[in-house]
Amino acid sequence: MTVTAGAPLFDRLALIGVGLIGSSIARAARAAGAVRSIVATSRTEATRRRVVELGLADRVVETNTAAVEGADLVIVSIPVGQCGAVAREIGPHVAPGAIVSDVGSVKGSVLRDMAPHIPKGVHFVPAHPVAGTEFSGPDAGFAELFVNRWCILTPPADADPAAVERLAAFWRALGANVETMTAEHHDLVLAVTSHLPHLIAYTIVGTADELAAVTKSEVLKFSAGGFRDFTRIAASDPTMWRDIFLANKEAVLEMLGTFNEDLARLTRAIRRGDGELLFEHFARTRAIRRGIVQLGQDAAAPDFGRPHPALPQAPIPRPYATDTD
Amino acid sequence: MTVTAGAPLFDRLALIGVGLIGSSIARAARAAGAVRSIVATSRTEATRRRVVELGLADRVVETNTAAVEGADLVIVSIPVGQCGAVAREIGPHVAPGAIVSDVGSVKGSVLRDMAPHIPKGVHFVPAHPVAGTEFSGPDAGFAELFVNRWCILTPPADADPAAVERLAAFWRALGANVETMTAEHHDLVLAVTSHLPHLIAYTIVGTADELAAVTKSEVLKFSAGGFRDFTRIAASDPTMWRDIFLANKEAVLEMLGTFNEDLARLTRAIRRGDGELLFEHFARTRAIRRGIVQLGQDAAAPDFGRPHPALPQAPIPRPYATDTD
Repeated sequence: MTVTAGAPLFDRLALIGVGLIGSSIARAARAAGAVRSIVATSRTEATRRRVVELGLADRVVETNTAAVEGADLVIVSIPVGQCGAVAREIGPHVAPGAIVSDVGSVKGSVLRDMAPHIPKGVHFVPAHPVAGTEFSGPDAGFAELFVNRWCILTPPADADPAAVERLAAFWRALGANVETMTAEHHDLVLAVTSHLPHLIAYTIVGTADELAAVTKSEVLKFSAGGFRDFTRIAASDPTMWRDIFLANKEAVLEMLGTFNEDLARLTRAIRRGDGELLFEHFARTRAIRRGIVQLGQDAAAPDFGRPHPALPQAPIPRPYATDTD
Repeated sequence: MTVTAGAPLFDRLALIGVGLIGSSIARAARAAGAVRSIVATSRTEATRRRVVELGLADRVVETNTAAVEGADLVIVSIPVGQCGAVAREIGPHVAPGAIVSDVGSVKGSVLRDMAPHIPKGVHFVPAHPVAGTEFSGPDAGFAELFVNRWCILTPPADADPAAVERLAAFWRALGANVETMTAEHHDLVLAVTSHLPHLIAYTIVGTADELAAVTKSEVLKFSAGGFRDFTRIAASDPTMWRDIFLANKEAVLEMLGTFNEDLARLTRAIRRGDGELLFEHFARTRAIRRGIVQLGQDAAAPDFGRPHPALPQAPIPRPYATDTD
């Protein structure tokens, strides 16, 4: 199958859920000319109204069943805990030959919850674009979110290869790199690259918030020492993340076990004053950062390229003063 | 004491150590006109040569004792584990009335190690600018590093208030906000806002690096799910951080205890499927991020304001094609 950049890959994209990810898909699909038209819906009226105001879709409808009618690509962009119920609802209304996909951060549970409700003749290809920010809602999305990020497809064993390739082409049109793996492996990989980091960040930000000896104001003021980096992640959508931890329980608990062992090892080194062990560990982790930057998965600039305000300059010496001084 | 912006506050600044922080002080002090001249030195010849090439100081000398001669402000910008030895070396050579300071991330150990070597008549005022990036060395510094960041002074109980205020004025000239507290309280505050976050980041990056089930390449590729935020911190200078953990052992271990309790609580919630507890915790930590952004201690832009590459646009329709097509 040849894909011409900019030629619509799908006739009608149905978006169920238009938050950060859903609205970014809408913007990117339009910008890339990947679909001919977009029909969107959201559970809440406020979001549906906002989608209309932002002009993110050609048509905004009130129900999930209305959204999927006549669509050849359906993308469910909602917290993973709700995916099963939505699949049950839309299943009977999806057109034969259409692709149903999602964007959930856990794939085993999505496969388990959604697959039984997708009728024969409809292609079910779960997907997970590994991209996002700490913001939520239709205003938070932007067309560039997926550029140079990875989108992982986890098709069931009996998936139609042509349908998988069509969805892969869609994500590539949005700027993403595409990789395919099993749902089980996905959940293990993401447990370490995403779920465990979020759990740790949520924990430490909560810890700092509850201390008696250090005031909340001090925590905020002196956060540039490292803490602030964690607060960004710990500001992620609470519903989405509650669902992720409940849905990927086993892999997260397994990674937590390894993390706890490693933390105990470093703690012991601190207690015993084992500077050599600490130095060796810190030197090794520094190298990993370089790998990520080299792969284009993070900014090479210091501090994530955060803006730094300018320094107030010394006043211009008098000889150079202007008339208006 | 009135401070005129841009009027030199000190005649001669002696910089011992010209890494990220030392070289940023040199650049900022010059840009702000805070000192009349800068004499710098470094332990390694390569750094001294680079400081000359970069033109960061008026004079680069080979020894610490040569650097401090005739200086009215001495700033030691080296890993905290070396501060005591350097104080012993320079103590007898510092001019009476001069201020000796440092930039160490632990203040109890600096006070304990340096104070005994500072002669009567010389003012010892430890300082800690809470600012930095993941890079090291004289090339990594920049003049804006301290703007709108906090610099914490931890003067000994018997410090001369005029000397403390003079050093505070210096840091304000470099763009920093200044706060004064005891060394003991500083070490507790920084244990939570800086040292614990670094330890956690160093741990999790190491954990990810050692997994058998997930390849190193997968960890790097899918790091945008959250992991990459931790790698920045875990790329910080290994020597500096080894010294910090050894020097602030008690406070770090205390904070670790609280962190471990909190992590156990969230782990239990995941194991038991207690979504309500998770949601409440995640909603609370989201609010803390807002506080930090409101205080100007982090970028309000999504993703720390990281640059996002542009999306390849759909090709321009033929009617608008240019002659050169």
